Amino acid sequence: MTVTAPLGFRAGGVAAGLKSTGAKDVALVVNEGPLDVAAGVFTSNRVVAAPVVWSRQAVSDGVARAVFLNSGGANACTGPEGFADTHRTAEHVADLLGISAGDTLICSTGLIGVRLPMDALLAGADAVVGAASGEGGSDAAHAIMTTDTVPKITHVVRDVTSDASPDGTGEWSVGGMAKGAGMLAPGLATMLCVLTTDAVVDAATADAALRAATRTTFDRVDSDGCMSTNDTVILLASGASGVEVSGDDLTQALTEACGELARGLVADAEGASHDISVTTVNATTEDAAVAVCRSVTRSNLFKAAVFGNDPNWGRVLSAAGTVPESVAPFDADEIDVTINGVQICRAGGVGEPRELVDLASEREVHVEIDLHAGDARATVWTNDLTHDYVHENSAYSS
Amino acid sequence: MTVTAPLGFRAGGVAAGLKSTGAKDVALVVNEGPLDVAAGVFTSNRVVAAPVVWSRQAVSDGVARAVFLNSGGANACTGPEGFADTHRTAEHVADLLGISAGDTLICSTGLIGVRLPMDALLAGADAVVGAASGEGGSDAAHAIMTTDTVPKITHVVRDVTSDASPDGTGEWSVGGMAKGAGMLAPGLATMLCVLTTDAVVDAATADAALRAATRTTFDRVDSDGCMSTNDTVILLASGASGVEVSGDDLTQALTEACGELARGLVADAEGASHDISVTTVNATTEDAAVAVCRSVTRSNLFKAAVFGNDPNWGRVLSAAGTVPESVAPFDADEIDVTINGVQICRAGGVGEPRELVDLASEREVHVEIDLHAGDARATVWTNDLTHDYVHENSAYSS
Repeated sequence: MTVTAPLGFRAGGVAAGLKSTGAKDVALVVNEGPLDVAAGVFTSNRVVAAPVVWSRQAVSDGVARAVFLNSGGANACTGPEGFADTHRTAEHVADLLGISAGDTLICSTGLIGVRLPMDALLAGADAVVGAASGEGGSDAAHAIMTTDTVPKITHVVRDVTSDASPDGTGEWSVGGMAKGAGMLAPGLATMLCVLTTDAVVDAATADAALRAATRTTFDRVDSDGCMSTNDTVILLASGASGVEVSGDDLTQALTEACGELARGLVADAEGASHDISVTTVNATTEDAAVAVCRSVTRSNLFKAAVFGNDPNWGRVLSAAGTVPESVAPFDADEIDVTINGVQICRAGGVGEPRELVDLASEREVHVEIDLHAGDARATVWTNDLTHDYVHENSAYSS
Repeated sequence: MTVTAPLGFRAGGVAAGLKSTGAKDVALVVNEGPLDVAAGVFTSNRVVAAPVVWSRQAVSDGVARAVFLNSGGANACTGPEGFADTHRTAEHVADLLGISAGDTLICSTGLIGVRLPMDALLAGADAVVGAASGEGGSDAAHAIMTTDTVPKITHVVRDVTSDASPDGTGEWSVGGMAKGAGMLAPGLATMLCVLTTDAVVDAATADAALRAATRTTFDRVDSDGCMSTNDTVILLASGASGVEVSGDDLTQALTEACGELARGLVADAEGASHDISVTTVNATTEDAAVAVCRSVTRSNLFKAAVFGNDPNWGRVLSAAGTVPESVAPFDADEIDVTINGVQICRAGGVGEPRELVDLASEREVHVEIDLHAGDARATVWTNDLTHDYVHENSAYSS
C-alpha cells in the first residue's frame, strides 16, 4: 500500500532523535532498478530550503537512485551552512548505498531557521540504510510525519494482461507516501511526497506525467494560501514490472495516486472541522475556474463562516468579485452558488433559504459556483478556519 | 473634529430602527456650498452593493450635495430590487433637501444579501434631515458604526494666513469620519468614509487628490485580504473658506486625514491583540515594496504567530518568497528582517536571537523587510490572527 508496493524498491524509517518525542524521523526510499528514472516537482516559493536547492538540481538529469528524508527540521533559511549540511548528507547516504551523491535526493521538513543536528542525522542514515527492505514502506511513511495524525499512503494498480498491447503485458502500479496536515503547525514546512512505480518509462515521460498529475491534485489543495519553502514531490521509476506504459496511462495512474494523497492531507488537516471543496463551473477557461476557486478557498471570512456552520454565500460572491475580469470574465449578476446541493444564491441574489443547508451535521462542504460564462471547470479543496487553526499556528515551540 | 468642522457643512445621525440595538443607524452629510464639488473612491470588487453602483455613477460628474448613509444593512447582492431601494432612497432624501437625486450619494453597511427595511429607512431620512446641523458631525460618525467600538473622526487644519499666496489667505481644513473595525464582523460590508473640506478646489483636483490620498492610506490597511462589496470614500468640497488650495496641498491634507482614520481602523480591529506594520525598504519600486508587504500582511501563518507573540521571521521570508520575481526583483539570500528593532534575520538566515524580541508586552509590531534591491519603500498595516477573529467571523447572526 505504499512506496514499496511496486516492484524494485526498498524503504525504511527509523528514529534518529530529531523529534523530541522519540518517534521515527528519518526515512529512505531506494530504487533497485533496473531503471533509475526520476522526476521532481518543487515549491515555487523563491525562498527555498537547502534540500530543495539540492534535489531540484540533482533530479534535473532525470536520474536518481534514492530519496533520503527527515522530519524534525526543515533546513530552510539556514544559509550556506544549511546547504553544506544537505550536501554532506547526500554524500554520506550515497557512500552507504554505493551510488553517486548526485543521484541521491534529500527532503527535509520541520522548523524553519534551525540547523539540523548532523551527528544524529548521519547516524540515522546509517541505521535506515541497514533497515531498508521491501517491506519498509510503512516505516518510511511514518517517519516523515510531523503534525499528521495518520500516514498518507496509496497504491494504484494497473493490470494490462488482457490488453493486446505490443509494449508488454502484466501488472504495474504506483505507490506513494505523503506527509502534510493541510493546516500547518508552527514553522513546519509543509508537504513531502514520494511516488514509486515499476512501470517502464523514460525520464521525459515521467516528468511530464508527474507535472500533469500534481497540477490537478496537490496544486489544488489550498489549506491557508501559505506556500512552503520545502514542498517536494518525487517520482522514482524502477521499470521492474517490465511493462511499458504510455504517458497518458502513467499520468492517469499518478493523478489517481496524488488525488488520494491530496485528499488525505485535507482530511487530516489539523484543527479543521470541515473539508471544503470549491468547484467553479461554466468558466471561460480552466485557469479562470481555478482563480475563482482560489479566491474563495483563501477567504478567511468564508472559511470562518463555514466553521460557524454558516453557508455564507455573500462571502463567496464577495471573494469571487476580487478576481480580475482579465483573468475570469463573468457577469456578477449571473452567478449561482450552490452549497451542499442547495442553490442559496441565484443570479447574484438571494436563492433558496439558507436554513435548508445544514452544515453542522456534515464534515464535507461542497460549494459550486456557476459563472454562466463558458464550459470549463475546476475544483480546489481547503478547510475551515477554526480556533484550533489559530491555536496550532500561534503556539510557539522554541 | 469631524465632517462638520470645515465651513459649509451640516450633518446628523439618528436611530431609525435598522439596528436591533436601538443605536443610531442613519446619517446625513450636506454640503451647503457655495461649491458642490465631490469625488469618490469605491471598492474594486466586481461584486458591488447597490449604493456603490448608484454613488459611483452619481459622483462621476464631480458634483454632489449630500451623502446619506445607513448601517444595519449593506444592500449588497440584493438584485434589481436592491438597486430600486437605493434609487428610491436617493430621490426621497433629495426631495427633502430640495436638490437633485443625482447629487445625492448613498452608502450602506451591514449584512450582505438582505433587503433594507424601506419604511424605517425613509422615516429615518425624514428625521435626519430635520436633525442635521452644523454641530451634527459626531452624531453622524456614531450612526455609521457597526462593530466599531469608537467612532473614527479627524480634523486637519491648515492656516495659510502668513503665506504670500496670491490665491487667498486664511484657514481651511479637512474633516472626516469613517467606520470599519479592521477585522470584519459577520457579513458586514466594511469601510465607509466621508471627508469634507471648505477649500476652494475644482472637481478634477479633488478627484486626483482623493485618489492619491487613499492609495497610500486606506489601500494599505489589509485586515484579512478580504475586499468588501461596499467600501466607499467620499470627499465633498464646499469652498466656504474662500481659500484656493493647490492639488499638492489638498493631497497632503487628505493624506493626513485618511492616514489618521485608517490607523484608527487598525487600532479598533475586533479581536486583534496586535497592530502590525509591515514596511519593505530598498525595493526596486514602490509597487514591488507594496507587493512584498501584502504577501506578509495576508499570511495567516505569520499573523497567527504574532498572536502567539512569536517573531517568526521564517514565515516572513516564506511569504515574501511567494511574490513573483517579475513583480519584485530581489535575492532571497540578501533579505534582512527586523522586528521591533531587532534584526532577527540577516542575509536570509538566522540573525539576532529571537528571544530579544518581546512581543507580549507590545500592542504594536513593526516588521521591516530590507530587500537590498533598490531604494523604494512602502508600509501596509494589518492585525494579528486571533481566536476572537475566528469567533467574530464564525458566529452566525441570522
